[in-house]
Amino acid sequence: MSTNPDNRVALVIGAGDGNGAAIARRFAREGYIACVVRRTADKLQPLVAQIVASGGRAHAFGTDARKEEDVIALFEQIERDIGPVEVLVFNVGANVPSSILDETARKYFKIWEMACFAGFLSGREAARRMAARGRGTILFTGATASMRGAAGFAAFAGAKHALRALAQSMARELGPKGVHVGHVVIDGMVDTDFIRGNFPQVYAERMPREGILKPEHIAESYWQLHSQPRDAWTFELDLRPYMETW
Amino acid sequence: MSTNPDNRVALVIGAGDGNGAAIARRFAREGYIACVVRRTADKLQPLVAQIVASGGRAHAFGTDARKEEDVIALFEQIERDIGPVEVLVFNVGANVPSSILDETARKYFKIWEMACFAGFLSGREAARRMAARGRGTILFTGATASMRGAAGFAAFAGAKHALRALAQSMARELGPKGVHVGHVVIDGMVDTDFIRGNFPQVYAERMPREGILKPEHIAESYWQLHSQPRDAWTFELDLRPYMETW
Amino acid sequence: MSTNPDNRVALVIGAGDGNGAAIARRFAREGYIACVVRRTADKLQPLVAQIVASGGRAHAFGTDARKEEDVIALFEQIERDIGPVEVLVFNVGANVPSSILDETARKYFKIWEMACFAGFLSGREAARRMAARGRGTILFTGATASMRGAAGFAAFAGAKHALRALAQSMARELGPKGVHVGHVVIDGMVDTDFIRGNFPQVYAERMPREGILKPEHIAESYWQLHSQPRDAWTFELDLRPYMETW
Amino acid sequence: MSTNPDNRVALVIGAGDGNGAAIARRFAREGYIACVVRRTADKLQPLVAQIVASGGRAHAFGTDARKEEDVIALFEQIERDIGPVEVLVFNVGANVPSSILDETARKYFKIWEMACFAGFLSGREAARRMAARGRGTILFTGATASMRGAAGFAAFAGAKHALRALAQSMARELGPKGVHVGHVVIDGMVDTDFIRGNFPQVYAERMPREGILKPEHIAESYWQLHSQPRDAWTFELDLRPYMETW
Repeated sequence: MSTNPDNRVALVIGAGDGNGAAIARRFAREGYIACVVRRTADKLQPLVAQIVASGGRAHAFGTDARKEEDVIALFEQIERDIGPVEVLVFNVGANVPSSILDETARKYFKIWEMACFAGFLSGREAARRMAARGRGTILFTGATASMRGAAGFAAFAGAKHALRALAQSMARELGPKGVHVGHVVIDGMVDTDFIRGNFPQVYAERMPREGILKPEHIAESYWQLHSQPRDAWTFELDLRPYMETW
Repeated sequence: MSTNPDNRVALVIGAGDGNGAAIARRFAREGYIACVVRRTADKLQPLVAQIVASGGRAHAFGTDARKEEDVIALFEQIERDIGPVEVLVFNVGANVPSSILDETARKYFKIWEMACFAGFLSGREAARRMAARGRGTILFTGATASMRGAAGFAAFAGAKHALRALAQSMARELGPKGVHVGHVVIDGMVDTDFIRGNFPQVYAERMPREGILKPEHIAESYWQLHSQPRDAWTFELDLRPYMETW
Repeated sequence: MSTNPDNRVALVIGAGDGNGAAIARRFAREGYIACVVRRTADKLQPLVAQIVASGGRAHAFGTDARKEEDVIALFEQIERDIGPVEVLVFNVGANVPSSILDETARKYFKIWEMACFAGFLSGREAARRMAARGRGTILFTGATASMRGAAGFAAFAGAKHALRALAQSMARELGPKGVHVGHVVIDGMVDTDFIRGNFPQVYAERMPREGILKPEHIAESYWQLHSQPRDAWTFELDLRPYMETW
Repeated sequence: MSTNPDNRVALVIGAGDGNGAAIARRFAREGYIACVVRRTADKLQPLVAQIVASGGRAHAFGTDARKEEDVIALFEQIERDIGPVEVLVFNVGANVPSSILDETARKYFKIWEMACFAGFLSGREAARRMAARGRGTILFTGATASMRGAAGFAAFAGAKHALRALAQSMARELGPKGVHVGHVVIDGMVDTDFIRGNFPQVYAERMPREGILKPEHIAESYWQLHSQPRDAWTFELDLRPYMETW
């Protein structure tokens, strides 16, 4: 494996939303090769083109992050053909609320599989490589539901709590091996197509007043976490707009 | 369905360990019909016999609590043939530690399926019936790992964190509907065959000094939670021996 | 000092509200000599008379629990003249909200002095005697503000957080010495004269629906905490009405 | 009051340790006028000289931060003579462990007064000015004891829990007014004279392996918190060496 620092990879799983895209751009701007992943690669072409147009390097991968063999193959391919994964960002969400009375077993499982199990698979693959190298950063995207099981959010909160436990356990095991594991709790609306489309009124009211999280600003915190020297690592930080009620 | 208070059922899923058995006995002693569940019913016959010998009523069920159809069938059969489920205790554990570097996808999934998904399935079935009746108690057994992701416990802590999020979300949704949902954090060794067999030295040192949780004492707290009037419900309490370091 | 179990004292500091009074009655009912304390003893006479009329034993003390010498004198007098303090309940509140912009240094200090410092003084005096005897129970009354610093509650939340830290630290130090320290988080309106007088509308709406905590039911949990055998002690539990939003 | 951005003040209360000094230097480097405070100003002269030698601006103040009138006078003098307080960092510690059995009322009070009450006084003075201007940053230094009451740390944990509650309450009230309040949990040894002098062996073992927090790296996180745009503010983050057990 090349140890050329020019080949270092920042792998973003769940790069399909504004947040994942901004994180990929942020690391690409610092010279990392952004490897961006979602289920179908072609939807990622605009992001790759944007990064390349800005002078960066990027590759898109269509991978089902819930499939063990696919995740293993993804890591093997990247490390063989592109460079060592120096940074893993797991940024997959799956927030679909439901009353416990109506929740289906299928949906409860799917939410966990996407928001937690996929994080385990990619986190473990990264951990194996990074622990062997004694370096690397693994960052998980959390949410309000990581800390609190609200009514109607049993499935999502379950997945997010489990992901946080995974991150905490990994941080405690891998820290002494030189691998930095962090968890970012995003506690507020993010400026995404989804929010614009589904909450147009709140969006129109809050956006001009800076009451909605901008992906670029979230990405900045991910970059700063990765930049911390190892005597002063953060495991967890929260991010929310100044006007948020919490 | 009978509303005869004499037919009220206390359903204990995960009655195979000392804790579940003690809880079943405790509720049977108060007149509840103990319905005790583990994967194979025959292993529960001594417990049933013991309850009956003490003047109580009990039935054993061999059910795979991870299978949706089986859990639904279990509730239907009990409510049809025995009585309304007034109390559900979900007491299934699955504590198998592992370094994140060695954890298999299969084991990570199995631990979640057993310790969390089965809790969702039975919790939902109980919730549906209890919410309709405006009464009932659902108690989940937690652990140290419910609150903290220790190194080497990514899978178990993930499942237990998710189970706690489920309990919290259900408590918030179902409380106003008259259903009491609680979570008991057991933070210490319990006096079980497993502990006796696997940690004989610690057991010998601690047991005579009351440094190991007795299932009967744990069961007492479950009973007290169920006995609370609805203006003063506890969601969560912890239990540990006086000499425990925490 | 007498070791006659008939002389065991349950000392309730902050017995002026409905909660403290109910706790005193609960322990008196079990044979404990209730020693009830507030700043002026004469206001406690109805409570003492009530306990005595029910066949119990009680003594009222007018003590400023914020004064070290007074608290020491109180413990010395009780242990010399009445019996060993087997149970201490610290139940002093001081919930006076304020914007941080208007909070005075005097009020910020007073709230801490009453709700936390007095708890330290009486907790320490109890701890010294109980640790020497290798037995006893110390229970602190917490609140929503013990867990969360809401806007407008900087002073009260500060005092309550500090009291919880005191309780936690004491529990960890004194548990192995045989002294049970607990913390009860009361998260909701309690049925007191204050609530009746100041929130008549909410009271009228909630009380008939059992939406307000009854002191007798709170007191029951204190009694149960004290009754726990030492292999299965609870440090913390919460209490709230079923219909509470949290 | 001048609104000249060149006059913006970063006020560091508790600038006597390595951490406070590094924070002052970090903000001075960005053009802020560092106003550094400890009980006696003369001990701060080397720090002021160092900042000035590096091309920065700094002023030392000898203020007893536990005295309301002194804190008010400090803010008035700075805002009148130097510039608007744009940043307040409250960095006063007082970690003196003790068994609860031996803790004196005097010491319990002093630790709270220094580590919490002084934070309230300076926090309130900053809040009043910043809320009126709709901008500013207030950062509190936390510790492991902010989150957990360990045995032997009743006083320190009490003060730190109370300070965290203050920070949380202020963040919730002042966020919507445009003032960013944050809390930094430092969970590990910091490279200070105190640690070097008192734990020489641990220091010698850990320092070469980057196992001790460097004040410059802590200071970087304070700077980044202040730099966050208001749509993506962090309330809390933790900092610890990679090799720390937690």
